[in-house]
Amino acid sequence: MSKQERAARTRDALIRSAAELFERRGYEQARLAEISAGAGVSSGALHFHFESKAAVAQAVENEACRSLRRTARATQAQRTDTLQALVDTSHALARLLRQDVVTRAGYRLNCDAVGRPELNLRQEWQSCVQALLSHAADEGELAEGVSQRDATTVLVAATTGLEVLSRHDGVWLSGASLTGLWRLLLPRIAAARSQRAVDPGGRGLAVGAPYGASGPQTPKPVPSAHPAT
Amino acid sequence: MSKQERAARTRDALIRSAAELFERRGYEQARLAEISAGAGVSSGALHFHFESKAAVAQAVENEACRSLRRTARATQAQRTDTLQALVDTSHALARLLRQDVVTRAGYRLNCDAVGRPELNLRQEWQSCVQALLSHAADEGELAEGVSQRDATTVLVAATTGLEVLSRHDGVWLSGASLTGLWRLLLPRIAAARSQRAVDPGGRGLAVGAPYGASGPQTPKPVPSAHPAT
Repeated sequence: MSKQERAARTRDALIRSAAELFERRGYEQARLAEISAGAGVSSGALHFHFESKAAVAQAVENEACRSLRRTARATQAQRTDTLQALVDTSHALARLLRQDVVTRAGYRLNCDAVGRPELNLRQEWQSCVQALLSHAADEGELAEGVSQRDATTVLVAATTGLEVLSRHDGVWLSGASLTGLWRLLLPRIAAARSQRAVDPGGRGLAVGAPYGASGPQTPKPVPSAHPAT
Repeated sequence: MSKQERAARTRDALIRSAAELFERRGYEQARLAEISAGAGVSSGALHFHFESKAAVAQAVENEACRSLRRTARATQAQRTDTLQALVDTSHALARLLRQDVVTRAGYRLNCDAVGRPELNLRQEWQSCVQALLSHAADEGELAEGVSQRDATTVLVAATTGLEVLSRHDGVWLSGASLTGLWRLLLPRIAAARSQRAVDPGGRGLAVGAPYGASGPQTPKPVPSAHPAT
């Protein structure tokens, strides 16, 4: 293994260790010494990569942002009707949040305003929902008389709520829970012809590699979706 | 004014000052000296009422809990159909959260697990939604084929999401936003005969006095619904 590969592996391990610690104890309580210990490296190695806890947090946030955007793009690149693309995207992002501690921790740092103010991942999700609903309306996929604004409000609020509630009980962000949401909403939102075609469970495409899978390190098994907050 | 009345007034002022500070700066960053200064009393006066920051926070949380429960009870005591009672309760609680900084701060302390672990206000709201939907089903007010479980998931997640999103932009928890939510959901959830009868904007009953209004102190005008988080 080259020196460069070793450095990249150490950096990945530090990011994952920090994410696990932020999730378990919160950003404020996490100590740099625990982050390096969790990654199995010295505190000197940590300081070689990151100058502060804020810098590690920013790296976690950047990885989360990259994974979420890549997954959303890959899902929407599939040939499908627009409402199905919206359903599939919500499922793919929820799956990523369930399975990958770095995405989860980075997303939450961003939402809780500990992270970078110029990055707003909830706002990006809202824009994504708005754009897909508007496209669906243009394609005649929306039920007549449904307000796009009301539909956006409910979809953004409900998916945001599922993520927040899952911090205490992972069941809220399960595939079953999200499918239930779409099962309730689709008959109200979708035009009759789309309604029959859209699968509320998502088309289950295997898109978006979890964080680290493309790097030299095999991702560790992810912990339970029940963070101790 | 008696000595007792003065003490109660000071305690109320400390609770309100703490709530404003928790909302503006977060629990961790709030200092006792600022709480007493905000209430216009000495730190000795603060320590007469509260032995620690945690004790003040608990008092804020207790007041929030009392106001929310009182408002929910008063709303549901009105003679109305069950679905209308659910709509009205959501509007009454949202209004309370918008208008009263003590309720807002106490609710958030509780949600963010800084507060008392044996008190779970989100769980109480979920139980309220569940009970009212179940009652509505018994009364034949629910649309045929609608899963009570899916409806509970969507309602609890969406209302939780509105509160969380309102921490950055108060518009999310406005009456208009909540009315939009019900306008979208009622045609899917309510049986045809109830649908026509239920007002998604709530029946706007003036129930539940804001915190402090029943005490000796006139409540101060509430700050903007845009906490700087």
